[in-house]
Amino acid sequence: MDFTISDEMQTTLTMIEEFVEKELHPIEFLFLNEPFRDLLPRIEEKRARVREMGLWAPNHPTEYGGMGLGLVEYGLISEALGGSPLGHFVFGCQAPDAGNIEILHLHGTDAQKREWLGPLVAGRIRSCFSMTEIEMPGSNPVLMETSADRNGADYVINGRKWYTTAADGAAFAIVMAVTNPDAAPHERASMIMVPTDTPGFEIVRNIAVMGEAGEDWMSHSEIVYRDCRVPRANLLGDEGRGFVIAQERLGPGRIHHCMRWLGICRRAFELLCTRAATRRIGPSRTLADKEIVQAWIAESAAEIEAARALTLQTAWRIEQYGWKQAREEISMIKFLVAGTMLRVIDRALQVHGGLGMTDDTPLAFWYRHERAARIYDGPDEAHKQSLARRILKRYR
Amino acid sequence: MDFTISDEMQTTLTMIEEFVEKELHPIEFLFLNEPFRDLLPRIEEKRARVREMGLWAPNHPTEYGGMGLGLVEYGLISEALGGSPLGHFVFGCQAPDAGNIEILHLHGTDAQKREWLGPLVAGRIRSCFSMTEIEMPGSNPVLMETSADRNGADYVINGRKWYTTAADGAAFAIVMAVTNPDAAPHERASMIMVPTDTPGFEIVRNIAVMGEAGEDWMSHSEIVYRDCRVPRANLLGDEGRGFVIAQERLGPGRIHHCMRWLGICRRAFELLCTRAATRRIGPSRTLADKEIVQAWIAESAAEIEAARALTLQTAWRIEQYGWKQAREEISMIKFLVAGTMLRVIDRALQVHGGLGMTDDTPLAFWYRHERAARIYDGPDEAHKQSLARRILKRYR
Amino acid sequence: MDFTISDEMQTTLTMIEEFVEKELHPIEFLFLNEPFRDLLPRIEEKRARVREMGLWAPNHPTEYGGMGLGLVEYGLISEALGGSPLGHFVFGCQAPDAGNIEILHLHGTDAQKREWLGPLVAGRIRSCFSMTEIEMPGSNPVLMETSADRNGADYVINGRKWYTTAADGAAFAIVMAVTNPDAAPHERASMIMVPTDTPGFEIVRNIAVMGEAGEDWMSHSEIVYRDCRVPRANLLGDEGRGFVIAQERLGPGRIHHCMRWLGICRRAFELLCTRAATRRIGPSRTLADKEIVQAWIAESAAEIEAARALTLQTAWRIEQYGWKQAREEISMIKFLVAGTMLRVIDRALQVHGGLGMTDDTPLAFWYRHERAARIYDGPDEAHKQSLARRILKRYR
Amino acid sequence: MDFTISDEMQTTLTMIEEFVEKELHPIEFLFLNEPFRDLLPRIEEKRARVREMGLWAPNHPTEYGGMGLGLVEYGLISEALGGSPLGHFVFGCQAPDAGNIEILHLHGTDAQKREWLGPLVAGRIRSCFSMTEIEMPGSNPVLMETSADRNGADYVINGRKWYTTAADGAAFAIVMAVTNPDAAPHERASMIMVPTDTPGFEIVRNIAVMGEAGEDWMSHSEIVYRDCRVPRANLLGDEGRGFVIAQERLGPGRIHHCMRWLGICRRAFELLCTRAATRRIGPSRTLADKEIVQAWIAESAAEIEAARALTLQTAWRIEQYGWKQAREEISMIKFLVAGTMLRVIDRALQVHGGLGMTDDTPLAFWYRHERAARIYDGPDEAHKQSLARRILKRYR
Repeated sequence: MDFTISDEMQTTLTMIEEFVEKELHPIEFLFLNEPFRDLLPRIEEKRARVREMGLWAPNHPTEYGGMGLGLVEYGLISEALGGSPLGHFVFGCQAPDAGNIEILHLHGTDAQKREWLGPLVAGRIRSCFSMTEIEMPGSNPVLMETSADRNGADYVINGRKWYTTAADGAAFAIVMAVTNPDAAPHERASMIMVPTDTPGFEIVRNIAVMGEAGEDWMSHSEIVYRDCRVPRANLLGDEGRGFVIAQERLGPGRIHHCMRWLGICRRAFELLCTRAATRRIGPSRTLADKEIVQAWIAESAAEIEAARALTLQTAWRIEQYGWKQAREEISMIKFLVAGTMLRVIDRALQVHGGLGMTDDTPLAFWYRHERAARIYDGPDEAHKQSLARRILKRYR
Repeated sequence: MDFTISDEMQTTLTMIEEFVEKELHPIEFLFLNEPFRDLLPRIEEKRARVREMGLWAPNHPTEYGGMGLGLVEYGLISEALGGSPLGHFVFGCQAPDAGNIEILHLHGTDAQKREWLGPLVAGRIRSCFSMTEIEMPGSNPVLMETSADRNGADYVINGRKWYTTAADGAAFAIVMAVTNPDAAPHERASMIMVPTDTPGFEIVRNIAVMGEAGEDWMSHSEIVYRDCRVPRANLLGDEGRGFVIAQERLGPGRIHHCMRWLGICRRAFELLCTRAATRRIGPSRTLADKEIVQAWIAESAAEIEAARALTLQTAWRIEQYGWKQAREEISMIKFLVAGTMLRVIDRALQVHGGLGMTDDTPLAFWYRHERAARIYDGPDEAHKQSLARRILKRYR
Repeated sequence: MDFTISDEMQTTLTMIEEFVEKELHPIEFLFLNEPFRDLLPRIEEKRARVREMGLWAPNHPTEYGGMGLGLVEYGLISEALGGSPLGHFVFGCQAPDAGNIEILHLHGTDAQKREWLGPLVAGRIRSCFSMTEIEMPGSNPVLMETSADRNGADYVINGRKWYTTAADGAAFAIVMAVTNPDAAPHERASMIMVPTDTPGFEIVRNIAVMGEAGEDWMSHSEIVYRDCRVPRANLLGDEGRGFVIAQERLGPGRIHHCMRWLGICRRAFELLCTRAATRRIGPSRTLADKEIVQAWIAESAAEIEAARALTLQTAWRIEQYGWKQAREEISMIKFLVAGTMLRVIDRALQVHGGLGMTDDTPLAFWYRHERAARIYDGPDEAHKQSLARRILKRYR
Repeated sequence: MDFTISDEMQTTLTMIEEFVEKELHPIEFLFLNEPFRDLLPRIEEKRARVREMGLWAPNHPTEYGGMGLGLVEYGLISEALGGSPLGHFVFGCQAPDAGNIEILHLHGTDAQKREWLGPLVAGRIRSCFSMTEIEMPGSNPVLMETSADRNGADYVINGRKWYTTAADGAAFAIVMAVTNPDAAPHERASMIMVPTDTPGFEIVRNIAVMGEAGEDWMSHSEIVYRDCRVPRANLLGDEGRGFVIAQERLGPGRIHHCMRWLGICRRAFELLCTRAATRRIGPSRTLADKEIVQAWIAESAAEIEAARALTLQTAWRIEQYGWKQAREEISMIKFLVAGTMLRVIDRALQVHGGLGMTDDTPLAFWYRHERAARIYDGPDEAHKQSLARRILKRYR
């Protein structure tokens, strides 16, 4: 066993950490308190500098302009970026585009790649992934109601999607729709690319999530597809393969989340320690002298380090053996890291007192929006159940 | 022992529960998604009906137009009202006015009462309580920096207050300021009434709390007092008694919070059960068939009932023996009920999945704003410490 | 509502508390470190004094020599007795005899009562309740294998029972056996009284539980019934009513456990506080100065008081409306009080450090033996599930 | 990074795992239910076979007959051994001898090594470590009362030690005693070797721990040193260096514990899964179909894997940089792994129901005796505090 990080990688990490601290921390207050679009020009400046530094799109294929890093190394970078809510966006590896890029790269036709993949990796356009429906628990495809009917050379899409992240301002959506209603449940749906300027694609509203409807990349839309017609050439992969591709996308996507969450953990932990060490509670005492706060610091440190060690081990396992060989570990870290993150955020918030409730720090932002970490891409309970069933097979 | 609720009280409770359900639940979506002031006309309609029903201001003195109920009975009502974020406001017993009314009633001069107490109980004006400063932990009065200097017949107030709830639109503030800087630490500050149209009273901003700056009653302001001059007749109680009065206000105030939180618990629990019982997860199954969800329901029920039993017992004890005899119980319920509420909200949110993150239900509102329950009026840790010290005295 | 304890009751409680402290605490070390039978003579002395004081069998019917107290008052006494592992035994209200007395009282024939009930209430004999089988989860009667076949005027019993508490030294067992194998599942078994000197009744072993096989009242036996023949007059209640009677026995039995556990909570809490207040950790500091210990004390106090308030409320409800109207509350307190007790014991043990692991205090005894509180009479999980299902009926 | 285990190591691990399962599991029931000395002959047979297989004393120096493995590899072996309560003893790497061997190896004189080290590594004799006193919290050396006075060529030792593990039957004790009462607090005590047949060395009792006084290696003694005279040549290291050496011993000792605990985790987890998969709860259902049990399995798996990953990383770090560079990680795993282990044991016990309470499985043994894992070698709270203080230095 060898836990060494290479010198080269360490240098890259240090560059990124400094960039995040010096360039991104100072615009966080704006991010937390102003409309997202007002901030976009400054974000684009930052992105330009990232490209100049050669650190753009660390996880994406080199032939499309990314750094092409493996999962362990990207994991370390993702941890560094996660410390700011803007990190991944500024470095061109934000969700949901990252997942869509993977799908296009693996399943797109040459024509699709030419038209969409390049601009997407380059950060010139954005995209969204339109799967969830309000009455459909993620795990139950039988209940999907959005349909895409073949009609000549086109698909005609009808249905209502919900919680489509970052649709507002996206160039296209990857839509999941039933193309083969009579097939077996998991073979009914397909993925289809729908440019957002297609007639019949309509954003009904940006859903108010935790008090904020948001806008642009920072939003979750309810979308109606009303006789929305796109060429059959927009099909991604084969018909009826939608759920298989979605599973492939979600598997690695989960570890991407975990890595980003570890970055949030680290930053929240730093805010916790800094606050403790500086907040006066008397003439010569600070919160750091309180044993309860010390216990939170110690517990947070241990939980973060353990979650991190398992996440890196999982990333390594995926790199070595493929993600199917790491399914159990992926389920483990999905709920373990999410839980750790939320506990650390909660402790950090508590130590900040009233200040922690405000948007003067990113803690309240994470507290409310990262609560979803225990829900999206499979709630804790679903991961626990599927993990246990997989384990229990060995005992029968 | 006798846990019976009188028939008369039960009738009143049923009326209130029906009112909350039929009149307030339907306007919650607006409350959660629109600016507060836009909703005020409809709220005033509701308040008018409450007055007609003779249920206005259940906790306030009859001579000023309230129902004058004792703490146990008001506790039961408060639980019924807490089920809606608008309940207490519509029934004229909302914080921070309720606390201010108590102070005025106990410590106000006849002139002060005449001018302010009537309109406040009647709900014609609102008020705020301006104590917290950003660098001052609540428990450490030594660090208070706002001063009120005697100048002829006036006080001249200077300083910066933070997190003054509901200042936006209030008619007056009760300000805590140092009048006697050379006195013993707990005898330095006084309470002074400051009409908000006094020159030198300036709301700097409504602080963005959990993503929302809010407005009117739904806001927390940063306020600057700049040579803000008010007559010395505006002093509440004696000079240097500020902290003593604040303690008196906070003691019962804590049980008021607990009673309201129990209402939130009950409503969140109903949302949890309703969602579980109605959310399909397959052709013939709902979330209610999941054992994990069942466990959450059972644990929530038990924790709520236990917290409720202790809260009522505490209210009874205060009624019988005065709140100083119930200090230990008040500390207990402060952190016990807050914790119970947040766990129940969290489980209810989780069972709602993505929907729980949105403002289509009140859960996300409570998730983010009631997080402060573990902080305001003394953080959990402060209550635990003071409770333990009090107990430990008996073992030395 | 009225939480007052009557003066008379308070006097009784004070007497009992003093007795427990002065008479029972001093013999605890022997109880914890010596064979139970060696201690029996001294225990009988204590029992004699309890009878003299008129406090014998507080929960049992007056016509058989008990005090005939209601559930609320007995609950308060049980709490006082639970503070010593010997309390209930010395006051004649120990399990499993208490439950058997209830069955005999409600379902016994006059002849059965004459022969068994008097001596049992008087404490001249002991009994056991022989239901559990190793392959039968308590909740699934279908799997019961012990049979009682009618044969002339007798039943002939065959089978193997497990975990029969206090069989060693008991005068008789109440055995649950299948008399009607073709009836509906819950109507197959009956309760039959078997004197332990009946041929074919054989104690195979006292099972080593948490390192101790124990003996006499402090034991759990594995028992073989081998052509064990008793008169049909030994049937308790009607044939096929075994499970119904067992349910009736277990319902109130659960609240008896809860009340005893509250006594353990209180004593463990006192040990925790005493240790904290007296254990030096430096020249002028004790463990009571540690904030973590303070937090444990505060959390324990709050959890105990809340669990206690709900238990008393439940007892009152049973007294008023019968135990079927309190099923939900009984399930709640079963797992709530058990969990609270185990947490308090665990904290008290931790504060005692190495000493807590030893049998120099009763903490290690409770730590290991009361772990079963989450298992017997229905494990936590079973109670949570049945409680949730009952609640969910109201939401469908 | 590379998480690969070498083929050679994997072969060794498989051999050991098979040995533990085939040779040790079958004698566990005897270990759990019979006096330890009765079992010793069979244990010695097993030890002989381990020596034949060349797997004796994997962690000890090759020059004294051990395998001389590094910490990472020994960690993997220790995990395999920890699955049985007898594993380490049978492989010659049990506490407290392992720690004493390290001290002798690092600080012993040639004469001391000749006389004691060889036989100890070979398993021909046993030893004990006599430091703890009942009134001395481990972290506060100022309170140590046992003294060793120079008297001619001898030390004369007087005092009372408590909780000296495995003293019963040991050949010698390493005693910590104050030799320099006027020195700075941490420089007062020395380590001295005392053969147990020295006059004045007296085992007062084997302390009943969790119901068992035990015997031989399975015991914890109270020892009186009464004018106990040994040659000054028995001093280990320099005078006044006792606490420094103890710290050195405890640092790596903690990771040894963690590795053993991971073995307990794994075995308890296997028992949990096996029970779940085989315990019928109805005609066609087992406990494995219960979602609550599934959740426990999933949570246990994730917590164990994370704790394991961090422990291996810590072992690697110690190997690379020395244990002083890994102090923070050692504190983390000390409380993290202990907590994980106790939770997993608790869940496994609960799934076994009444059976889990008995000594028919090792779960009840671990439940009661491994509770001490949160206490010995520094309680959780001490590690959390020292870890937090170390971290907080970076924020000041």
